[in-house]
Amino acid sequence: MTASANVKALAFDVFGTVVDWRGGIAAEAARVAAARGVDGDWNGFALAWRAGYAPAMQRVRNGQLPWKTIDQLHRMNLDAILDAYGLGGLDEAARRELNRAWHRLPPWPDSVAGLTRLRQRFVITTLSNGNFALLTHMAKRAGLPWDCIISAELFNHYKPDPETYLGAARLLGIEPCELMLVAAHASDLRAARDQGCRTAYVPRPQEFGEHQPAEAYDPDEFDLVAGDFLDLADQLVQKIG
Amino acid sequence: MTASANVKALAFDVFGTVVDWRGGIAAEAARVAAARGVDGDWNGFALAWRAGYAPAMQRVRNGQLPWKTIDQLHRMNLDAILDAYGLGGLDEAARRELNRAWHRLPPWPDSVAGLTRLRQRFVITTLSNGNFALLTHMAKRAGLPWDCIISAELFNHYKPDPETYLGAARLLGIEPCELMLVAAHASDLRAARDQGCRTAYVPRPQEFGEHQPAEAYDPDEFDLVAGDFLDLADQLVQKIG
Repeated sequence: MTASANVKALAFDVFGTVVDWRGGIAAEAARVAAARGVDGDWNGFALAWRAGYAPAMQRVRNGQLPWKTIDQLHRMNLDAILDAYGLGGLDEAARRELNRAWHRLPPWPDSVAGLTRLRQRFVITTLSNGNFALLTHMAKRAGLPWDCIISAELFNHYKPDPETYLGAARLLGIEPCELMLVAAHASDLRAARDQGCRTAYVPRPQEFGEHQPAEAYDPDEFDLVAGDFLDLADQLVQKIG
Repeated sequence: MTASANVKALAFDVFGTVVDWRGGIAAEAARVAAARGVDGDWNGFALAWRAGYAPAMQRVRNGQLPWKTIDQLHRMNLDAILDAYGLGGLDEAARRELNRAWHRLPPWPDSVAGLTRLRQRFVITTLSNGNFALLTHMAKRAGLPWDCIISAELFNHYKPDPETYLGAARLLGIEPCELMLVAAHASDLRAARDQGCRTAYVPRPQEFGEHQPAEAYDPDEFDLVAGDFLDLADQLVQKIG
């Protein structure tokens, strides 16, 4: 009997945990730029675009902005950085298409295989700040075998607001202690734990690139720490089976 | 170019349209009763249980009841009919388990194969008054290949309230005219049409049993009428492809 013995559903953070946003955005930006003869640091472009993400959600959280989807926040942040990368000339259609690159992010190599195994034992869902359509399109394209899509959009609250973790448990018809959040980010896991959820930490050391510093955490802070989703499946089947 | 040419997503009514609630409930009730040596008309039991469904939602819609999930409304209605069928002695655990029969309803024979074909071309989702957990469990058990689960529960409004059809389109990031409702019930389709959605009518003549009267509708009232989901796939590919 372990802390994870009563887990009925696994909720996954998505950006960075399931998919490689940095690699995906850099590749799409490079293609758009190449078609226009523009050179640049597209890895840096991806990091710059993503850097606007948390502050934009914070403005929604503070009430400085009305509720906006991640598609809308991404677009604001895209418009703010295009000039600096020599892409200020992109027209409306091209901006809209590039913004949709977040719907087309590639999964990490273990994601689909690991989720497929985990799905045999648990209900598996997204629990992401990405909007519902984004997560749905991403799953369809990448073959992510979710049982359902849960987005912060359903609660008009962004993670790490408590409403998201509690709302996911409510929609799934289970108690918070029966829900395990899987994430590559300690802050997300801590917020879930504070609401009574179980936690599995899956570090993704390449999320931000080669020289990403490791996150500090206490050895017993999370219910599980796994190297990837296949390791997570090994551990959860062993612990619970 | 047809009325369905710009359809991007198909939203499916579930009870009666995708799954056979009458057969599923009758079979589960018969098993529960047999284990207790109780005889009865379990087809009639299924019809009696379902008969409380629309009135219960109407009480929520009118504000006579606060928001309740279909699981909760089913349970109220179950408790109201058990005595009449000689099952008043069922304890709390047995009532809870029988109430979950709605999570385990069997699909019509063409449902999984038809949805699998339709999914290759469209985003496919539920749009059901069933609660989110019910629809998720049903899909997982029956192998219904939804891209996402959309429930009236997400909007705190039951169909045919406009908020449900408009809310589904909003979550999917599309216009109402890009969403096609697929249903076995003309009233549901008419309400979707009134919000600008496309409509596909798939009669299920066995939903209520052998002597179910056919619904009346005008020949041009719906964008499509199909015999089952395989016929629907044939027609939608032909019309749009």
